Amino acid sequence: MKALVYKGPGQKAWEDVPNPVITRATDVIVKMDATTICGTDLHILKGDVPEVEVGRILGHEGIGIITEVGASVTQLVVGDRVILSCVSSCGRCSNCRQGLYSHCLDDEGIAGIGWIFGYMIDGTQAEYVRVPFAENSVYKIPEGMTDAEGILLSDILPTGFEIGVQYGQVNPGDVVAVVGAGPVGLSAVMTSRLYGPAKIVAIDLDSARLKRASDFGATDTVNSGDADWKEQVLALTDGAGVDVAIEAVGVPATFTMATEIVRPGGNVANIGVHGKSVDLKLNELWIKNIDISMGLVNTNTLGMLLKLVEQHKLPAEKFVTHEFSFDQMIEAYDVFGNAAKYDALKVLIH
Amino acid sequence: MKALVYKGPGQKAWEDVPNPVITRATDVIVKMDATTICGTDLHILKGDVPEVEVGRILGHEGIGIITEVGASVTQLVVGDRVILSCVSSCGRCSNCRQGLYSHCLDDEGIAGIGWIFGYMIDGTQAEYVRVPFAENSVYKIPEGMTDAEGILLSDILPTGFEIGVQYGQVNPGDVVAVVGAGPVGLSAVMTSRLYGPAKIVAIDLDSARLKRASDFGATDTVNSGDADWKEQVLALTDGAGVDVAIEAVGVPATFTMATEIVRPGGNVANIGVHGKSVDLKLNELWIKNIDISMGLVNTNTLGMLLKLVEQHKLPAEKFVTHEFSFDQMIEAYDVFGNAAKYDALKVLIH
Amino acid sequence: MKALVYKGPGQKAWEDVPNPVITRATDVIVKMDATTICGTDLHILKGDVPEVEVGRILGHEGIGIITEVGASVTQLVVGDRVILSCVSSCGRCSNCRQGLYSHCLDDEGIAGIGWIFGYMIDGTQAEYVRVPFAENSVYKIPEGMTDAEGILLSDILPTGFEIGVQYGQVNPGDVVAVVGAGPVGLSAVMTSRLYGPAKIVAIDLDSARLKRASDFGATDTVNSGDADWKEQVLALTDGAGVDVAIEAVGVPATFTMATEIVRPGGNVANIGVHGKSVDLKLNELWIKNIDISMGLVNTNTLGMLLKLVEQHKLPAEKFVTHEFSFDQMIEAYDVFGNAAKYDALKVLIH
Amino acid sequence: MKALVYKGPGQKAWEDVPNPVITRATDVIVKMDATTICGTDLHILKGDVPEVEVGRILGHEGIGIITEVGASVTQLVVGDRVILSCVSSCGRCSNCRQGLYSHCLDDEGIAGIGWIFGYMIDGTQAEYVRVPFAENSVYKIPEGMTDAEGILLSDILPTGFEIGVQYGQVNPGDVVAVVGAGPVGLSAVMTSRLYGPAKIVAIDLDSARLKRASDFGATDTVNSGDADWKEQVLALTDGAGVDVAIEAVGVPATFTMATEIVRPGGNVANIGVHGKSVDLKLNELWIKNIDISMGLVNTNTLGMLLKLVEQHKLPAEKFVTHEFSFDQMIEAYDVFGNAAKYDALKVLIH
Repeated sequence: MKALVYKGPGQKAWEDVPNPVITRATDVIVKMDATTICGTDLHILKGDVPEVEVGRILGHEGIGIITEVGASVTQLVVGDRVILSCVSSCGRCSNCRQGLYSHCLDDEGIAGIGWIFGYMIDGTQAEYVRVPFAENSVYKIPEGMTDAEGILLSDILPTGFEIGVQYGQVNPGDVVAVVGAGPVGLSAVMTSRLYGPAKIVAIDLDSARLKRASDFGATDTVNSGDADWKEQVLALTDGAGVDVAIEAVGVPATFTMATEIVRPGGNVANIGVHGKSVDLKLNELWIKNIDISMGLVNTNTLGMLLKLVEQHKLPAEKFVTHEFSFDQMIEAYDVFGNAAKYDALKVLIH
Repeated sequence: MKALVYKGPGQKAWEDVPNPVITRATDVIVKMDATTICGTDLHILKGDVPEVEVGRILGHEGIGIITEVGASVTQLVVGDRVILSCVSSCGRCSNCRQGLYSHCLDDEGIAGIGWIFGYMIDGTQAEYVRVPFAENSVYKIPEGMTDAEGILLSDILPTGFEIGVQYGQVNPGDVVAVVGAGPVGLSAVMTSRLYGPAKIVAIDLDSARLKRASDFGATDTVNSGDADWKEQVLALTDGAGVDVAIEAVGVPATFTMATEIVRPGGNVANIGVHGKSVDLKLNELWIKNIDISMGLVNTNTLGMLLKLVEQHKLPAEKFVTHEFSFDQMIEAYDVFGNAAKYDALKVLIH
Repeated sequence: MKALVYKGPGQKAWEDVPNPVITRATDVIVKMDATTICGTDLHILKGDVPEVEVGRILGHEGIGIITEVGASVTQLVVGDRVILSCVSSCGRCSNCRQGLYSHCLDDEGIAGIGWIFGYMIDGTQAEYVRVPFAENSVYKIPEGMTDAEGILLSDILPTGFEIGVQYGQVNPGDVVAVVGAGPVGLSAVMTSRLYGPAKIVAIDLDSARLKRASDFGATDTVNSGDADWKEQVLALTDGAGVDVAIEAVGVPATFTMATEIVRPGGNVANIGVHGKSVDLKLNELWIKNIDISMGLVNTNTLGMLLKLVEQHKLPAEKFVTHEFSFDQMIEAYDVFGNAAKYDALKVLIH
Repeated sequence: MKALVYKGPGQKAWEDVPNPVITRATDVIVKMDATTICGTDLHILKGDVPEVEVGRILGHEGIGIITEVGASVTQLVVGDRVILSCVSSCGRCSNCRQGLYSHCLDDEGIAGIGWIFGYMIDGTQAEYVRVPFAENSVYKIPEGMTDAEGILLSDILPTGFEIGVQYGQVNPGDVVAVVGAGPVGLSAVMTSRLYGPAKIVAIDLDSARLKRASDFGATDTVNSGDADWKEQVLALTDGAGVDVAIEAVGVPATFTMATEIVRPGGNVANIGVHGKSVDLKLNELWIKNIDISMGLVNTNTLGMLLKLVEQHKLPAEKFVTHEFSFDQMIEAYDVFGNAAKYDALKVLIH
């Protein structure tokens, strides 16, 4: 089969590789219908994630048809069309029993982390994929749902919702600020609406992204390039700050921005993947009764979000700005890797 | 009357000042029976808290008898023996209605902070005190409770419980680590037991303090001066880390320690008052699904803790290591200011 | 002034009575702009609530202008336009400190119940009203909000939200059933949307009411007169039952219906005011891991709901089907008392 | 092998039956070391549970050694000493993913109920048992834990804790009342202490049982045969009622007692297995803001409780009043079936 293979820092190829085979009784094999590219894939390709071995097939998002099931699989059958969670979870370790799938202790013996696709094991940018712990890690797709509607459910939509909105404890009537209007930030914007906030304020340096944020549900936008950006945000509250500040970039400056606009008693929810430590102003914050959360998605809301997408309550297909076929994988990477140039948000490869 | 007056950085006096008078209908005047000294008072005296004006009477903890009540006070009468909360709360602003008394918006027009005694208004190290919003800020003491049993309820016991144990979300069966075995750390140790943890691990550099921690309820102690202190802590867990790490010192090193020993999915609760920012390793922590909380006490558990002290379920009197009369106020400061030398924990002045 | 006075079972009059005066330092006097009639008023008039004394002015909902303030009132001034909560709360008793305003222990010495207007003290169907504990019990109205938008916030909108939606713990993706499409049921329908449910199923015997429910946000309707009504409801779920069943009528049959359609692990939230006991099938339900809640509104979400109404996120004015002037009070009662005949939902008297 | 077989209403035998064999890849076979008898077993024997087929091996509690593992079992090995949960859970259905193991949808195709041992499939009063979904349903026993310490963890200790204490939301400082001082009531008494209540009041008709309750941790006892039992309970509170009332009998009278002693804003947690419906006084209770919970145990706290038993923080062995060998099974039934006569609480068969 063909797959997108990591060939070392700065190098990749869409090339022939052996088909995957079932290695555990809980595995299934899926023939991929659709996949996409995540910022993390770009990081791996740059060589920023040295634990990824040369030869690894990338990708952790996808939709496909089951072509083979392991010996102990009873709830899935050949022919089922399914969405793959980016997180593989055994469902029986102490972390999984608490819904902390992101820290599954039993993933293929790779203790302590639930995200293994395209990282520790071969991923989804391929014609076929072996899915470990399949009954705990895939979801059947309802009739009539398109690839564009479903593909974001593998990772980005649950990430924005669980790590941004739920960890941030958005409540009806809240003012929510989302710092960063890229894909994951927009996912937090879109899913914040599920908890009835009074305002969703998108903050970004790029006015084109802010315009898109309004289309995704932001009620207000603030350009963080403005000298008075902070005053603009506070003016949208009762003056005391936002109830929930969601960081969706992953650099120190944006995290600090989130801590500066939150009200006493409010929450900062970090979604961003950080490469550096940040200077936390505990000397100012210790007295503010705030809460700072962070984490890898558990995808334990994937099934629920799927229902809402099916009912057109979450227009998930809006994220897809460009479509490609599998043999255009390299072009897809080019477009996603130069998102600003192409005005791209997420690419759908199917 | 006599009171302990801040005379500028490094200077204080136990001197004659005018008696306080009622200025609002919701005030009461209390003749003090007992007070104590807090680390914050030492900070103010050093000049570290410049917003405190010269001439301010210090102290925010105390027990006394009501001698006068304002026009709208109906639930308290002259003669009631009461404990003063260190936090003054109006009970009607949007923050108070949510129990966020620490950020009362109406405190004497000093918007945004509930702690005003011995800081923004005259405090409790005096023979008489004016107590604003008295019906929301004092609690009647049960018959037979001693000063030593009650005095810690003004601040330190609720602080350890609310900001350490409750914000840290201690649950039955948890392994809890408390970094710092000073008064507030011991308060977290003692009140952690209310949520049935499996282990309470006290961590400190000073073995005398660790010994005392065992007496306050720590099941295990680790000396953080040991090169392998971290391994010792992890060995007390399943290897993954503690469920709740409570910081009770207020310096960058101890905060960082707390973030290093918490398990994925666990909580870091900061109680310490910090004078500097800290380097938060978000590059390592973003993926750990932890939660970092902090804040000023609300004392909304004061009434509940009072019941448990009354029933001898919390031996609050253990904190009092030295007792003084009011006219020994300066000696009391000397002992508390040199706590290590005198092996002092908390001083009772009555 | 003029007021609607209860004259004994079956009798009422719109007649001259003395103006109210301030009796406590925490009172204000409000000149009423608008009021409405509640089903409870009809019950009182029938004589079903014998503790209501002859001569009592009825009504517990209203909007008006403050004309006088008590001695300890500092946050409200003459001229403020305010909404009155149907619940009067002192803000300082142990129940109020927990947000359980419905069981304020200090209401005018009438221990244990927060609803006193038009019941234990004179109410709001009058030209002037004395409001006890005013700073805890009234909310300033934003500029430009109409009487029709604001009037439901006194009682019915918070009741549907707090006792139906919040006690029922509606979550994103849930299937919610509301049994009874009268005013309070429609209030639960409208405010359920704040928690992003997948479906809101209105259930009623009257198809006209079901039609209105759709207009208020119900995604599905089921006529409970149909022999297969229960099967129809279950067909809207995965077969196991609804996540949340909200009872909004107050008779045994509808309560039982709610317990029959809830899924294992789900919640039954009773809003209805019951006059009889009900037969609870604990022999069937004990194993279902359900939760049954009930209660009087606290109105601690009134301020939050006010913000959402101001932003036109909750079209509260839809409830008002008929408008009257104060001197048409008796006609207003006639229309509301014969709601089916006039197709009336709520009447606005202003 | 030998097993206790249900032979129809009123009849049982300890007789030879075929050894169990593995039928699914997720099964294990356990050689039983210890089992016990539950009130439910007596109900089945009476013929009260007609869905139990003649020939069924009874029992749903036990400890044993694994002698064989299914093809997909990777976390358990032959020789492991384990406790069996009374609830079998697949760990992958929508209910299990929420921790609602009591309503596992996939239990051997017996949709909707997690308790199947000794009910829908052969149980634990036997020399060998087949355990379905073993990796989700058994827990390894720490070195040195005795049968008497471990046996209650299969069912009764988690039941008292989850359905009584956790569903009842016991909090530090609460007054908790437990109606019924039989095994499951005492389990609620013992585990209530994990949440630091101020008082635990045991209520029963039998003074011998009340005496035992004190030994299990009750701070106060009330004999419900006393005419003023209710006044005695209220006198132990502030007069308003208990914070949490736990029903642990399963008859209408005791359930009604629980609803009569709970304070406004409090919780009623039903543990009892009811055979009849009860008359719920909604006409009095609708206004009390109480919450009524009920359900079958999930045993998702079994692992946590196991840790506390290991540390001797929960003296679980106290429940065992009589011990028997396997070939004394019939005698064991006789003693347990006449508990009052023998002053028996739980019997250990090993």
